[in-house]
Amino acid sequence: MSDATTGAAKERLYLYDTTLRDGQQTQGVQFSVAEKLRIAAALDALGVDYIEGGWPGANPTDSGFFDAAPATRARMTAFGMTKRAGRSAENDDVLAAVLDAGTPAVCLVGKTHEFHVTTALGITLEENVENIRASVAHCVAKGREALLDAEHFFDGYRANPGYALECLRVALDSGARWVVLCDTNGGTLPSEVGRIVAEVIAAGVPGEKLGIHTHNDTENAVGCTLAAVDAGARQVQGTLNGLGERCGNANLVSIIPTLMLKAPYADRFETGVSEEGLAGLTRLSRMLDDILNRVPLKQTPYVGGSAFTHKAGLHASAILKDPTTYEHIDPSLVGNRRLVPMSNQAGQSNLRRRLAEAGLEVEPGDPALGRILDSVKAREAEGYSYDTAEASFELLARAELGRLPEFFEVKRYRVTVERRKNKRNKMVSLSEAVVVVKVDGEKKLSVSESMDETGSDRGPVNALSKALAKDLGRYQEVIEDLRLVDFKVRITQGGTEAVTRVIIDSEDGQGRSWSTVGVSANIVDASFEALLDAVRWKLIRDCGEVS
Amino acid sequence: MSDATTGAAKERLYLYDTTLRDGQQTQGVQFSVAEKLRIAAALDALGVDYIEGGWPGANPTDSGFFDAAPATRARMTAFGMTKRAGRSAENDDVLAAVLDAGTPAVCLVGKTHEFHVTTALGITLEENVENIRASVAHCVAKGREALLDAEHFFDGYRANPGYALECLRVALDSGARWVVLCDTNGGTLPSEVGRIVAEVIAAGVPGEKLGIHTHNDTENAVGCTLAAVDAGARQVQGTLNGLGERCGNANLVSIIPTLMLKAPYADRFETGVSEEGLAGLTRLSRMLDDILNRVPLKQTPYVGGSAFTHKAGLHASAILKDPTTYEHIDPSLVGNRRLVPMSNQAGQSNLRRRLAEAGLEVEPGDPALGRILDSVKAREAEGYSYDTAEASFELLARAELGRLPEFFEVKRYRVTVERRKNKRNKMVSLSEAVVVVKVDGEKKLSVSESMDETGSDRGPVNALSKALAKDLGRYQEVIEDLRLVDFKVRITQGGTEAVTRVIIDSEDGQGRSWSTVGVSANIVDASFEALLDAVRWKLIRDCGEVS
Repeated sequence: MSDATTGAAKERLYLYDTTLRDGQQTQGVQFSVAEKLRIAAALDALGVDYIEGGWPGANPTDSGFFDAAPATRARMTAFGMTKRAGRSAENDDVLAAVLDAGTPAVCLVGKTHEFHVTTALGITLEENVENIRASVAHCVAKGREALLDAEHFFDGYRANPGYALECLRVALDSGARWVVLCDTNGGTLPSEVGRIVAEVIAAGVPGEKLGIHTHNDTENAVGCTLAAVDAGARQVQGTLNGLGERCGNANLVSIIPTLMLKAPYADRFETGVSEEGLAGLTRLSRMLDDILNRVPLKQTPYVGGSAFTHKAGLHASAILKDPTTYEHIDPSLVGNRRLVPMSNQAGQSNLRRRLAEAGLEVEPGDPALGRILDSVKAREAEGYSYDTAEASFELLARAELGRLPEFFEVKRYRVTVERRKNKRNKMVSLSEAVVVVKVDGEKKLSVSESMDETGSDRGPVNALSKALAKDLGRYQEVIEDLRLVDFKVRITQGGTEAVTRVIIDSEDGQGRSWSTVGVSANIVDASFEALLDAVRWKLIRDCGEVS
Repeated sequence: MSDATTGAAKERLYLYDTTLRDGQQTQGVQFSVAEKLRIAAALDALGVDYIEGGWPGANPTDSGFFDAAPATRARMTAFGMTKRAGRSAENDDVLAAVLDAGTPAVCLVGKTHEFHVTTALGITLEENVENIRASVAHCVAKGREALLDAEHFFDGYRANPGYALECLRVALDSGARWVVLCDTNGGTLPSEVGRIVAEVIAAGVPGEKLGIHTHNDTENAVGCTLAAVDAGARQVQGTLNGLGERCGNANLVSIIPTLMLKAPYADRFETGVSEEGLAGLTRLSRMLDDILNRVPLKQTPYVGGSAFTHKAGLHASAILKDPTTYEHIDPSLVGNRRLVPMSNQAGQSNLRRRLAEAGLEVEPGDPALGRILDSVKAREAEGYSYDTAEASFELLARAELGRLPEFFEVKRYRVTVERRKNKRNKMVSLSEAVVVVKVDGEKKLSVSESMDETGSDRGPVNALSKALAKDLGRYQEVIEDLRLVDFKVRITQGGTEAVTRVIIDSEDGQGRSWSTVGVSANIVDASFEALLDAVRWKLIRDCGEVS
């Protein structure tokens, strides 16, 4: 990014993403074809060089993904393994399925550790070398770019460096574009990765053909990757958010900004990721969490909600004088933002910025600012959280500013959940909700039940949400296009008691999306509060501030 | 741990835990005094050398913790800052409050980066050096072991190495036992940490007096710590589970096993942590998550639920032949365990082991094993999870083995949640639950409401749990000592629909604790299922298998 100033030509580093293959080995992760397509498109927009889409033939999802043949600028790569002993590469059905995916690149995992050749495969060392040779040659003959994932390379090199190196050499001699050194068990530490990569290069394997693939079993996957780059490797394999078998793979979401923004990498290397791609990194990381229905980890480097949050009082006041006092990069470069807790002096300017984002201009020094901060603080102590629930935050601020119209009043509600045997002697559940509101002086009673179109019970919150949205008088038309898209429940601490925090994500037909929060010891109450906020926020947007 | 075999004397590495101070800077974390005492006792049992308990005088919790004066084998350490300019160390009230805590060790943060001295403090470089000198000398004169946390040391050293070194030297000359190099902004990469630590030692600061304190802003806190140890630093600062400001501090839960189990550290160093302490690490990490009401991260190195889980089919079958094929250490050394997903061939022996742990001996090849695996798989597809809910897993297995007594039958239940204005025109909620069970041929109706002793509404699940446990006939006595201690709710994916998964943790008066799971689109149903499992598991334990 400082080309113009240094004038020096930069070396190219290649980024290889395996979120869709190794990332899918994460416990509890199983992507659908549609999700894989969405992630592949996002990776392509980011600017990685290779997208490993899965193992064609290994399961229906991976096969379905390649059948959909997504068009990407990045090289779509099919994963597989070297042919088995005792048959030719042409006659290996597993390898054939991989090639049938028709991808421009093929990555084959092969053994390079003698212990695994003899113990796990039960073949001779020579047979394994031949399997690598024939498999790579076959892929190249089919016109594909071939990569060898050298499984257990570091353990293998420690046990028998000559054999491990021979496996790499035969792959390169057979036409492989890359040999990738894999620390499959994740047990090798950064200093040793650096030493071994340097020795491999000294033994004649060019760094321009060397990749690195690490795992996080000692919390060093990123450090091992950087150590390999320092030593000369020029392809980096990893996954988004560090997904992967056991403790995960090297996290590209941490590695990419380090390579692009920090010394000595920024001046020395270039990747396929643009500044715009980098600025989309926070959103990309959160999108993947959304797909996995995971709560994004606040502490995540670069893209986490806490990554640029300055809680310590000394830090917060210094940040106001100069952000570089406690920040190693500008958060906007990765699409993240600074957060100074609102409970101290530094908070008022931060608060005014948040209010302005919601269209509420407030003069500096307005006493309402202090009241809003006090209110936020008191509610956070009860268990509320406004980090994501910006719509509820806006409503709270409007209340303090006297700019919250009362469109309608909820007089009461009642929800009943009943479970009993039906006529066919099967236990079934049904919920019923009654909501009573007053709109324009008129009382309106609405009742709904929790059964959906298919006859399934969707629970009490569903019934309540339907009853609330059933008759709001002249506001009814406005909320017709409101949809609840997600519902998150956390048990948290409010004062000394455990309380339930519900966050509801809503969308409407105009492309808006917003989040609201409710807190109560009673989960139904907490949900109702968040539902109510969702409706009120929407009414403000569509009916204006005058009720 | 291999003293006996190598015969060589090992160097001592000192572990300094700052969970209770820097860890408390984590967004959303606020320990109570009782929690701090509990964590301090656990750290002491682990065997760290120093426990930094907080900043006496900075807030009521930290002061309360030191007032309680916990007795630990580890050196209890109070944190503070060097005296301010323009007054003597004796007359600095902030420093006095730190010393008043009466701890054997005192750690003072001081500036070593000229930019921070002039910008953040607004004093001269000479004044800052004098603040360090006088503050350290004052602590030593009071008979305390003194440590200097050299804030922003790495950034400061890059800007002005001479000044940064001068700050270290004056602290040591004034009697500091340790100077700790802090990468406060977390932006320094491992290779540079290693280079600068080596240069500091070459400049005459002994490694035996050097500590390292890193942050995880580039996901390299552990790697930076190891690089500093490689270069000669002999004190390691960090926190449990990597808590800390922004992205957190170096994670001692990852660093300790690496130092104790892996080359080159295991043969070269010794720490105060015993093998028993190490074997308690998984439990310790989960205990902290419990205190913070966090879901433990499965992917956490060494101690996570997925750290030794082998999902890939090729890995799972190789693991059966020899665990070292895909494991870098034996999981039991850190108190963790291997998990082979039960949905493949490797799963049957794993399943028999889990059943044996529940007291259910099943012969290899018993067809019930296949049925249990199928049942687990089908229920996991619906959204159930048996990773933690071992009691529900046991009940499922018992059902397939024909060893699940039917103590009672639930005929129906009904829960009503109502919110309306009370006599004083305030909105209040109340839930009421009716449960109908059949015990020994007799039908029993029980009703309870959600109000607790203080008059607060505890919600529908509370009412339901009380009604269920109100009258179970001859089993009533057995469940009198059953207590629900935690209740966790997750929205997850069951088939194509979002469903609610509820995990309930229970305890009884005999010291047992167990977890059960329920899944439904209806949160009340999911909770009821988990409650029911909790009661049934307890009845099996106390009434035996014959109903």
